[in-house]
Amino acid sequence: MAFLRGLSLRGEGDGTWDTVLRGSARRMAGVLHTYAPLTEEAWAEPLRAELGWLSSTLGREPQYATRLDRLLEALRRLSAAGTSEVPPGPGGGPAAGAPAAGGGPLALGAARAAALLERQLTLARTRAHSAALQALGSSRFHALADAVAVLASDVPLSRAAAGPAGAVLEPLAAQAHQRLADAAGALPLNRASLPYNAEAVQASLGTELTTDLQDAPWHQVRILLRLSRYAAEVPGAGPAGEPARIADAGRLLQQHHEAAESASAVAAAARTPRIAPATAYALGVLHADQRHEVEAARFAFSRLWQSGSPAQAATAASAQPASSAQAAQPVPAAAPARAGAAPGARTP
Amino acid sequence: MAFLRGLSLRGEGDGTWDTVLRGSARRMAGVLHTYAPLTEEAWAEPLRAELGWLSSTLGREPQYATRLDRLLEALRRLSAAGTSEVPPGPGGGPAAGAPAAGGGPLALGAARAAALLERQLTLARTRAHSAALQALGSSRFHALADAVAVLASDVPLSRAAAGPAGAVLEPLAAQAHQRLADAAGALPLNRASLPYNAEAVQASLGTELTTDLQDAPWHQVRILLRLSRYAAEVPGAGPAGEPARIADAGRLLQQHHEAAESASAVAAAARTPRIAPATAYALGVLHADQRHEVEAARFAFSRLWQSGSPAQAATAASAQPASSAQAAQPVPAAAPARAGAAPGARTP
Repeated sequence: MAFLRGLSLRGEGDGTWDTVLRGSARRMAGVLHTYAPLTEEAWAEPLRAELGWLSSTLGREPQYATRLDRLLEALRRLSAAGTSEVPPGPGGGPAAGAPAAGGGPLALGAARAAALLERQLTLARTRAHSAALQALGSSRFHALADAVAVLASDVPLSRAAAGPAGAVLEPLAAQAHQRLADAAGALPLNRASLPYNAEAVQASLGTELTTDLQDAPWHQVRILLRLSRYAAEVPGAGPAGEPARIADAGRLLQQHHEAAESASAVAAAARTPRIAPATAYALGVLHADQRHEVEAARFAFSRLWQSGSPAQAATAASAQPASSAQAAQPVPAAAPARAGAAPGARTP
Repeated sequence: MAFLRGLSLRGEGDGTWDTVLRGSARRMAGVLHTYAPLTEEAWAEPLRAELGWLSSTLGREPQYATRLDRLLEALRRLSAAGTSEVPPGPGGGPAAGAPAAGGGPLALGAARAAALLERQLTLARTRAHSAALQALGSSRFHALADAVAVLASDVPLSRAAAGPAGAVLEPLAAQAHQRLADAAGALPLNRASLPYNAEAVQASLGTELTTDLQDAPWHQVRILLRLSRYAAEVPGAGPAGEPARIADAGRLLQQHHEAAESASAVAAAARTPRIAPATAYALGVLHADQRHEVEAARFAFSRLWQSGSPAQAATAASAQPASSAQAAQPVPAAAPARAGAAPGARTP
């Protein structure tokens, strides 16, 4: 089980060491989960829990930072006073991300909403930072580091691990891939692959619970995809599928997750007492925008996923266009001339 | 020019006579515009202006009614406490359009936003109704009716009208079709045919002016499409293109127009002084939703238009999917099994 050593060593890097640490903790926890039958449960289970605690504690700060960037960028885009529909002349369009110039009470609301989100998310980020520092200084962390340090030589294997690596690892990896395939197949992919289905925005004025129920299966697939990817990284486990496609799918589900979390943060900000109506209005626009990014990510994922799974494609021939590869990645570079030149283009 | 008589007679119908009257006024004005070189300008120009006045005066009331229906329906959809992502079981999903049950301050905002819009649009509608009644009782209307009544026998034709109907009418109709083709070709169709391009929502927190600038070319194409259709209705003028496709395109541009106007109405409502933040938030979500409907209509139109114009398709091969017909009309009926059963599906 040399892979564990390799992974744990990666945790001792420098510079962006907390990112590396978090990533490898997540990776180790994932690998321990997939290959659980090979190790003694009484040993693996607590270790996995500790690794999960570490990665989630360290992950919170960068999450808040990303979320704030994302929302401020969206607000800039939503209030950009550009005329991007007019084919750009020789002088080019207006600078992308230019702040709104004037624009009355509603434009003022955008600026105030940005300030409110900045306050709230910066506070959350600072708290997460303190919590991460505290965690790294704790005896709990040192105990975990000790446990990881001896991983390479001292893994208590179960009886099931007695056998050639291929024969032992492959079925478990295949199980992880199958769990992913099943969960992704249960997603409403056919509906999501219809553009502008307005599904994700549906209950955005309803209860939080409704949205959470709607998003949960997608988040679940995101986690299973990650587990499947980690499982395949173990030497001898066999491939999980076409790596580029898996990476694309992971990126889209990550975007889905970030957009959903951002929308929740906006809704939470809108519940702040005594905000001005213009601020609340801007937050409402922003919320719907993020929910549409959720929908866009689902759309792209559905097209990508359906384009590569023949079983799905057979039952949904009409949702399988020749352009699915293009539709799945509507990045500006893939767009024809005029679209590529338009400012403020975003990558869904 | 017997067609004018036919059109004017249709104006004397009953029951929904004001709808008929408005439609035929618009139609006559359109035909007079396209075939202007065949009539004396000093006679046609004032008549056209009066027909335009009548159709716009009569059109306002139904517009407000449609807009209110559209917005209330969207609010219901946005606050629906459904769980439509879960594949519907034997009991089916929750009833479509069910009102939000509970849901905290933000759900309350949706109800208040609905009440606000209802108040404002009903007031506007009542005023438009009075204005229409006043117009129909005015001497201005009677003068117009007199002018229309003698149209059949007494059209002052210009010298250009001396010739066989086909030779005279066809070039002018072709001109109308060409104006439409040019204007539609100048639209950013390639960009709009990328799903989730986030173009229409871009400046929704900016100035009204920016949005208007962005929408104007699309509204212009909508009017030119109508003119082209009316021109082709004249016997001897030749066809404008495949009728079903033209009708679909017109419907999509009409949806585009309605969504854009509805979004403006929402933004106007959000400027009402002293509304609660929750109300403003709901209006913001609704505004962004309507702007996304604008984008969805552009998307569908672009796919439809590009699928039928070879010149366009050659320059934008990548935006020409095999499924464009399906993509252009993602109505629930066209969607595969699970999607069709989901409640709250909307026709973009």
